Amino acid sequence: MNAPRPTPDAVPHAQLTAADRFARLGRRGCTVWLTGIPASGKTTIARALEDALLAAGTPCIVLDGDTLRHGLNAGLDFSNEGRAEAVRRAGEAALLIAESGSTAVVSMVSPTAADRALVHSRHMKASLAFHEVFVDAPVRVAESRDPKGHYARARSGDLPSFTGVSAPYEAPTAPALHLRTDRASVHECVDAIRALLKP
Amino acid sequence: MNAPRPTPDAVPHAQLTAADRFARLGRRGCTVWLTGIPASGKTTIARALEDALLAAGTPCIVLDGDTLRHGLNAGLDFSNEGRAEAVRRAGEAALLIAESGSTAVVSMVSPTAADRALVHSRHMKASLAFHEVFVDAPVRVAESRDPKGHYARARSGDLPSFTGVSAPYEAPTAPALHLRTDRASVHECVDAIRALLKP
Repeated sequence: MNAPRPTPDAVPHAQLTAADRFARLGRRGCTVWLTGIPASGKTTIARALEDALLAAGTPCIVLDGDTLRHGLNAGLDFSNEGRAEAVRRAGEAALLIAESGSTAVVSMVSPTAADRALVHSRHMKASLAFHEVFVDAPVRVAESRDPKGHYARARSGDLPSFTGVSAPYEAPTAPALHLRTDRASVHECVDAIRALLKP
Repeated sequence: MNAPRPTPDAVPHAQLTAADRFARLGRRGCTVWLTGIPASGKTTIARALEDALLAAGTPCIVLDGDTLRHGLNAGLDFSNEGRAEAVRRAGEAALLIAESGSTAVVSMVSPTAADRALVHSRHMKASLAFHEVFVDAPVRVAESRDPKGHYARARSGDLPSFTGVSAPYEAPTAPALHLRTDRASVHECVDAIRALLKP
């Protein structure tokens, strides 16, 4: 091997902590995690929250469980393992978004407490705020909405692993916020979340 | 089923386009994709670019291939399939970060043109800027740096799939920028990338 030229300016750049980055940006990123049974109102609230945050100049992005299945989570099925991996990847993406200084608004059924706890702990390790929001409505109310016709299909046995009908949903025991979308308006729900995000 | 209460304010919120979001934020997100053989200087440049962008108030985050293997890409191996999936997931995460209005700086060997082209096309479909930057140094120079001792291990046969030694690297044929890190300083490389990002 010939004598190589020295590496120019090979000063190692240590990875910034989230706190360093936020101090330099003058803004903190975080993750808002909306969990609940299908048609409980997660995506409606996520989109309204996004509108409100953008109007206030806060960069944000909605990670919607259905949409992610066309991208980051493509190829995963609805088995327990497939769902766990979908939640894990969404959590890792949200973590990176939060770390960059934006607000990640995740809208996913994410039916198991263990999967959500794992995402929460990953955020804690990175010193990033993680707000678990339980978007709650009685099954009969969610079923009456049924915008995609999934409840009807689940009742007919067509969807063998549908959360709330043919698969369990583990409600959060200590969410940062518990919203009842059969009682509160979308506007009230968004205001409650925004109050949570105030420094 | 009892008569359900009507869904309050169930106004559908259409997904914002990236252009809508950027107009409202007054800032455009994008992805800078640094590709090159191991020890070509990708991560050094990524960290220096991050410093410069943050100093200018531009939110950004480095997605480093090695670091991602502890999170989003955990469990993937170094087979062709494992590498392709690692690049795909990094690309999807970068896309979401760019869409949120931040700059995603990806630092990954990403040895195949096809895997990089797939990420590029995903960005194009979402109307998001994707800047492929070829971080280039001769193998002998990269090997002389060898900060992790990987080249030495690859030469000894210890790493059977090491890009540049025991696995191929497909150089970009039309990168947005071609940096020669054996000739240009880190500062010069960062300036060249920043010029690319100017509106």
